[in-house]
Amino acid sequence: MDCEETSSCSSLSPAMVSVDEALQTVLSVAPRLEPVKDGYAVVASDGPGEYPVISESRAGSDGIGATVTPTNVAYVTTGGPIPEGADAVVPIENVEQIKDTYGGVKFVKILVGASQGLNIRPVGFDIDKGATVMKSGELIGTSEIGLLATVGLMMVKVYPRPTVAVLSTGDELVEPTTQYLSHGQIRDSNRSMLLAAAIQQQCKTVDLGIAHDNEEDLERILDYANSGGIDILFTSGGVSMGDRDFVKPLACCMNRVSISMVLMKPGKPITFAEIHFTSTGESAGKKILAFGLPGNPVSCLVCFNLFAVPAIRHLAGWTNPQLQRVHARIAQPIKADPIRPEFHRAIISWELNDGSGKPGFVAESTGHQMSSRLLSMKSANVLLELPATGAVLSAGTLVQAILISDISNFPLSKMQNSMDLSS
Amino acid sequence: MDCEETSSCSSLSPAMVSVDEALQTVLSVAPRLEPVKDGYAVVASDGPGEYPVISESRAGSDGIGATVTPTNVAYVTTGGPIPEGADAVVPIENVEQIKDTYGGVKFVKILVGASQGLNIRPVGFDIDKGATVMKSGELIGTSEIGLLATVGLMMVKVYPRPTVAVLSTGDELVEPTTQYLSHGQIRDSNRSMLLAAAIQQQCKTVDLGIAHDNEEDLERILDYANSGGIDILFTSGGVSMGDRDFVKPLACCMNRVSISMVLMKPGKPITFAEIHFTSTGESAGKKILAFGLPGNPVSCLVCFNLFAVPAIRHLAGWTNPQLQRVHARIAQPIKADPIRPEFHRAIISWELNDGSGKPGFVAESTGHQMSSRLLSMKSANVLLELPATGAVLSAGTLVQAILISDISNFPLSKMQNSMDLSS
Ligand SMILES: [Mg+2]
Ligand SMILES: [Mg+2]
Repeated sequence: MDCEETSSCSSLSPAMVSVDEALQTVLSVAPRLEPVKDGYAVVASDGPGEYPVISESRAGSDGIGATVTPTNVAYVTTGGPIPEGADAVVPIENVEQIKDTYGGVKFVKILVGASQGLNIRPVGFDIDKGATVMKSGELIGTSEIGLLATVGLMMVKVYPRPTVAVLSTGDELVEPTTQYLSHGQIRDSNRSMLLAAAIQQQCKTVDLGIAHDNEEDLERILDYANSGGIDILFTSGGVSMGDRDFVKPLACCMNRVSISMVLMKPGKPITFAEIHFTSTGESAGKKILAFGLPGNPVSCLVCFNLFAVPAIRHLAGWTNPQLQRVHARIAQPIKADPIRPEFHRAIISWELNDGSGKPGFVAESTGHQMSSRLLSMKSANVLLELPATGAVLSAGTLVQAILISDISNFPLSKMQNSMDLSS
Repeated sequence: MDCEETSSCSSLSPAMVSVDEALQTVLSVAPRLEPVKDGYAVVASDGPGEYPVISESRAGSDGIGATVTPTNVAYVTTGGPIPEGADAVVPIENVEQIKDTYGGVKFVKILVGASQGLNIRPVGFDIDKGATVMKSGELIGTSEIGLLATVGLMMVKVYPRPTVAVLSTGDELVEPTTQYLSHGQIRDSNRSMLLAAAIQQQCKTVDLGIAHDNEEDLERILDYANSGGIDILFTSGGVSMGDRDFVKPLACCMNRVSISMVLMKPGKPITFAEIHFTSTGESAGKKILAFGLPGNPVSCLVCFNLFAVPAIRHLAGWTNPQLQRVHARIAQPIKADPIRPEFHRAIISWELNDGSGKPGFVAESTGHQMSSRLLSMKSANVLLELPATGAVLSAGTLVQAILISDISNFPLSKMQNSMDLSS
């Protein structure tokens, strides 16, 4: 499994949302079309004739749900949006109201046909004499919200935030609120961690709790997955997607399962599946991405960053969902693993002199990189990519670093500490 | 006004929250104290004697609200927390229950005094043989949530997210939903933008709408401010904090007002005030920071980043609330302003060769920097700091850049575009 594989699937279906809910989402369609006159939105190629009226649009968002197809029309006003499918507006003076309705459906007679685009203007590109305010595929940030408000565009079509469900598996797991552990018990830390990680990636989340290795628990998961409300399912722990017992009940509806032993440090078997529902219920045709992540918390979080984040971004409509990479000079010598490429947890900070005499990022290792040591993830803002050479990289070596958190939004004490160390 | 001035005030009072709500907040107190035995939490210096029992703690969070002071005690169990103020636990076998209660208050007799720290253990540092999981002042990120769950610490004391209220002022402003503008009207874009910017800084927000230049509207603001529910008030637009009409109703309760014409580009008068409520209501003693930001959207957002973000971070308990700076080489020549230091909006991307033959950030200007041009903020992830030399900085010049958005979380199309340009 690699990032390419997970991003081969399509993005989520765009939906109209208010600008207030659009922060950090990707714009799907812009600008919006708007009638210049009150009248009937039509498919221009239909021409004159009698047509049923499917929707009465008014100022606001009334017409947003409606879709005009050939042989029907929708009433629109200058304040309202143009329903999807329509490509022209026939003004009211060129339309005759038909007194009788046919079986409760209102009809109108279009007297004069309209050419494509007639009486429709695109909204959202009138700043700086015709420059487009936003294009499809762009992320809606703070200033973009200001731009959309400036041109009066308060409803936008965006790729929705993916909804992700998180399940921990393993008979040894207990709720993290458990104060005293019995022999062999461990607190479930992965679930809180993955839910937080998903929230940081702008997802909506569903907590599926802990599943033990029995049919009942697995059925509970399947019920959730089947309900069609989620886009991604994350499981972690002893009962992985690759396990015989787990995979059996899912197998009926699985389209593709890829079970991979990824050669990396930290690393464990990761499984990835696309679940296509073939049932006839409301979830028919629905697809869910399922990731089986390692139970070990460090491996779990590293795999989430490397494999799940690009998949989430892809579903959320990002043009390029790949992780952002920079380069950094390591502050201490690091011995590379001889066999497995390593994703070494580190904290980068910007230094006036990165060791080369010029400004640059300096990377402080978070210490011992045992995969059982969650402290090695603490405050880490990058994963250093260390090729499997087995060589000792001397202090000052320039290595590639994958950003895993917001370096603009960091309570700088850490960075200052590392500044002290390097001076 | 500078960042120093705004950060001279104190942080918000820490509060207990569940770990689920703690993402991206700063930890105030850690680790938590926990009784090793069932008994009575006491102030050790009290010694033996009869004391009233103020709280009966049980497993869970029962004792969290209680505060033990000298001359009273609280019942605690090994599963529960230690109430604030207590510094020792007298085990049950050293306490005698008093049969009679005095006026409904239960009393106990402490038979044997306890030394400070007796029967109390700190929770949250048992990973890796005694290493502390988290320290006060650290930001709770994804891996920190995993660490807290691992040690069973699901309630934490953190600095709360500031609640900010945003008000737009000016008789020319209309709601951004307004489709057709009358002469002289403009849509209010600052409010949506500032609300979004505050959300990105992890704040809770209150939308105060548009105030026109009359007493009624200003009273509405004061009522909100007075209600004590907000920590920061942002106003922007024609009616600034410095204006005669606006400042009058606030003057009664204002402790300090600083009205500054900041020499910067883009820049306008900015006002900053600390409002101390001297009234006797529930807001007595409460303090609100008030920022009067420029009405011009570009100046407004730049000033928000430079002045308000450090203030928000300070209230939220950040050890160092200053903005993160890096260096970048400019992709095109830029002429510095001869008089005012400029904060030039740009998009930085990481390039394998930044022009010096080594990896580094390259900054693409967002184009014309007229302060009326909100498009110059679009997609900008940095403000380049250009000293007022009047000189033309040639392409490839290394300049300082203030990060204003998350460069790890950027739909890379922009970055790729700039890569194409530089190759
Ligand atoms: Mg298993
Ligand atoms: Mg004014």
